[in-house]
Amino acid sequence: MSPESAPFQQVLSAYRSAVRAKDVEAFLAIYADDVQVFDMWGAWSLRGIETWRSMATEWFASLGDEYVVVEADEVEATVAGDLAVGHAFLRYTGYSAQGQRLRSLDNRITVAMRRTEGAWKIFHEHTSAPIDHATTKAVLQRDGG
Amino acid sequence: MSPESAPFQQVLSAYRSAVRAKDVEAFLAIYADDVQVFDMWGAWSLRGIETWRSMATEWFASLGDEYVVVEADEVEATVAGDLAVGHAFLRYTGYSAQGQRLRSLDNRITVAMRRTEGAWKIFHEHTSAPIDHATTKAVLQRDGG
Repeated sequence: MSPESAPFQQVLSAYRSAVRAKDVEAFLAIYADDVQVFDMWGAWSLRGIETWRSMATEWFASLGDEYVVVEADEVEATVAGDLAVGHAFLRYTGYSAQGQRLRSLDNRITVAMRRTEGAWKIFHEHTSAPIDHATTKAVLQRDGG
Repeated sequence: MSPESAPFQQVLSAYRSAVRAKDVEAFLAIYADDVQVFDMWGAWSLRGIETWRSMATEWFASLGDEYVVVEADEVEATVAGDLAVGHAFLRYTGYSAQGQRLRSLDNRITVAMRRTEGAWKIFHEHTSAPIDHATTKAVLQRDGG
């Protein structure tokens, strides 16, 4: 068991590319068939690659001709054999087709990955934003920006 | 690497006992010194056992003579060598000193644990509730109950 961010960096890189390209198949390729997600939005839990496919399909379709750039900060991971755990802060910035910055929001991501036939795939993902005690609203920017 | 919930069940059991007893030292005993937490409330990230000690001390003190019972549901975990990852739904129910049920809320928890000298300790914890898209408010009950 050792600190080793390479598997997570590799998965994050594929995640960024797939989101930027709004490519559902490339996006799903980094997830295991039995993936179970505690997603930031809506449901308490999503289970299985087909449920996750619906989420990705709807997300990318909702963007129209806009696109999203994902940046990762404070990326850390630990690996033991074929199991890895990683966490990071992600910033999602939306741009118009003309490249104008429209909006951005941050989240926190924790993933559990397993290596199967040489490829690391996420089998559990947990994304969230912290909740303000007084309002019970999510804090969607990490530094007010 | 295998599905194996025992280390996580053991840690959850210690967590429940420590919270029920409002015992800060027993609570901290299940966390590693370098623990990094994406907590549901307030801050984006908490780092280090002393920061976590402050959280636990304030939490337990805020309860006065009330107490909290934690129940876990859908507990799953995976172990590889000295690394384990687990996730579950937790329900926190507050009771008066006389045993009257006062309130409850749910969260989702993901933990990464390492085994050191035979003891499993949490070095990363992520708790959250899903966020309603329309209101950006946290959903604090899993089944409306």
